[in-house]
Amino acid sequence: MTLTDIDTPTPVIDLDRVERNLARMQAYCDTHGLRLRPHIKTHKLPRLALRQLELGAVGITCQKIGEAMVMAEAGCTDILLTYPIVGAAKVAPLAALARLSRLTVALDNPVALDTVAAAAREAGTEIGVLVEFDSGDGRCGVQTPAEALDLARRAHGNGPLAFRGLMTYPRGPRTVPFVAEARAAFGAAGIPIDTVSVGGTPGCWETHELPGVSELRVGTYIYQDRATVGAGVATLDDCAVHVHATVVSRPTADRAVLDAGSKTLSSDRVAPSVGEGYGLILDYPDAVITRLNEEHAVVDLSACAARPAIGERVRILPNHVCVVSNLHDTMTVVQGGAVIGEWPVAARGCTR
Amino acid sequence: MTLTDIDTPTPVIDLDRVERNLARMQAYCDTHGLRLRPHIKTHKLPRLALRQLELGAVGITCQKIGEAMVMAEAGCTDILLTYPIVGAAKVAPLAALARLSRLTVALDNPVALDTVAAAAREAGTEIGVLVEFDSGDGRCGVQTPAEALDLARRAHGNGPLAFRGLMTYPRGPRTVPFVAEARAAFGAAGIPIDTVSVGGTPGCWETHELPGVSELRVGTYIYQDRATVGAGVATLDDCAVHVHATVVSRPTADRAVLDAGSKTLSSDRVAPSVGEGYGLILDYPDAVITRLNEEHAVVDLSACAARPAIGERVRILPNHVCVVSNLHDTMTVVQGGAVIGEWPVAARGCTR
Repeated sequence: MTLTDIDTPTPVIDLDRVERNLARMQAYCDTHGLRLRPHIKTHKLPRLALRQLELGAVGITCQKIGEAMVMAEAGCTDILLTYPIVGAAKVAPLAALARLSRLTVALDNPVALDTVAAAAREAGTEIGVLVEFDSGDGRCGVQTPAEALDLARRAHGNGPLAFRGLMTYPRGPRTVPFVAEARAAFGAAGIPIDTVSVGGTPGCWETHELPGVSELRVGTYIYQDRATVGAGVATLDDCAVHVHATVVSRPTADRAVLDAGSKTLSSDRVAPSVGEGYGLILDYPDAVITRLNEEHAVVDLSACAARPAIGERVRILPNHVCVVSNLHDTMTVVQGGAVIGEWPVAARGCTR
Repeated sequence: MTLTDIDTPTPVIDLDRVERNLARMQAYCDTHGLRLRPHIKTHKLPRLALRQLELGAVGITCQKIGEAMVMAEAGCTDILLTYPIVGAAKVAPLAALARLSRLTVALDNPVALDTVAAAAREAGTEIGVLVEFDSGDGRCGVQTPAEALDLARRAHGNGPLAFRGLMTYPRGPRTVPFVAEARAAFGAAGIPIDTVSVGGTPGCWETHELPGVSELRVGTYIYQDRATVGAGVATLDDCAVHVHATVVSRPTADRAVLDAGSKTLSSDRVAPSVGEGYGLILDYPDAVITRLNEEHAVVDLSACAARPAIGERVRILPNHVCVVSNLHDTMTVVQGGAVIGEWPVAARGCTR
């Protein structure tokens, strides 16, 4: 089986590039004394999570209980859930996860804290807590160190919970001042902050410049994509996943249609400064994917000197690779230029 | 099990509304002598496809071979593939499909025609051909009746292929003049046009006003969504799928975060005239989902008088329901107000 025999559309992982990306990030963290805790949402593949641990990661990061269960069952024994787990329906699954793995949950409110405490009691085991703070992104997170301290106090010494530190996503402009203020307030309250965890591949190479930060959570670095290349943290040569597609129609001289729509690439865009359209066609970089329907990519060829024929294969660098992993039951895997397998994306679709 | 016990996020199908939507469309087609051929891409559920056939549909429409195989194995015996099938890797799967079902493929180029002919030879059975024309949408389709006639000539009398007519998506402004010109040209050439098939839920109720059109392909009508309500073809009371989500964070007075991100709702938008954001929260219609990450919906509550608490459940009308079906392994099903099951979305993820 060679790449050109493989049915399209399919995402293709270049395992050599994966290895290079993993080694570089681990070396960066080792050099600067940062703990690396990769986010598995990008690949959703147990064997790549285990490889990240083998290379020196202290544990993994997951977003949802479902994907964490897949990873725990595959042998990942230290998991951080960076998601506020809320509600009675989450207690039993969270308890099941806590029985399998050393578990830490990031949260920003007392309702989530109560849910996690109920799961810890049901599991009869300790669950760690990080308090999430908003460093400028405007998503989740407490707004002030005083709120963080209040949550930490509720967790600290609350039987089955263990307060373990602070977490933010990504590393916004308020990260350093927030951490400094929190360290002073927590110190005065006698509550130690073990971990300060920041996340996100964009900006990752400057993490060591943030005083007080101890842990780096990154996901996209394993594959990279058009957005992270646009953010300047990777080059096109670092990108390890491409979607292979076929030209299925050429209705006019200026238009091609590819068999890779939003079910294959997602509708995620990149910032206009990064590029136009729904992905970069490596073989025709002047082409623009102007529109996606579920199964169609409509491509404007008007800026292209050479133009593809019907039946021709093209390789697309996705705008956002994490969502591509979530859309596919399997990924084609290449090593040393040869197809070595078709891997099931075991933690795909775990929205709960 | 009641709806409030069910873990979130989950899409919930209201089967009573489904039945009403199915009956109304079948009655419309029966009244006007149109053949109804529902597109299963919206639901991807074999039992709903069989229900559509039971109510009077002449067959079903699928986009990809993979989803057509799921439907054929479930007992759908007349399938139209509205996608140009191109390349050697498609021949064997298309042949397998042709052995199970009366098959018609829409196409707009000779490379696809050759692929379909190869599959028909391999299967040892006839495969029908519709020639797709571009009625103004600018996606696939031949541009002129002369091109259509050329493809029909290549299909007509080409051993295992049977030319069956014309197809377009959606019903653009060129539909009627194109069909009239084509009927004249094909008549002169002695090639009968059995079927003229148009598609798309927006505009569906005016299909009978298009002279020469014999078949209607609609998908979204079974569930409806924010886009079709915005297009004026349905009301909020017709919408049969809502995503149930939980408020997991309330970082500020004006902001809520829901556990339904782009992995749950997709990143698909609606036209600005239809509404803002990534879905309509029925319980808080003045709220705006301003941003989605993979697992987070960030909601602006600044226009809301009442505001939800952490842990509260909300129901979201998705912008585009077909892509929601594709993101979920299962859908929760409600009938008469009670949860009657959790149905596997059997044809989810079939991108090939």
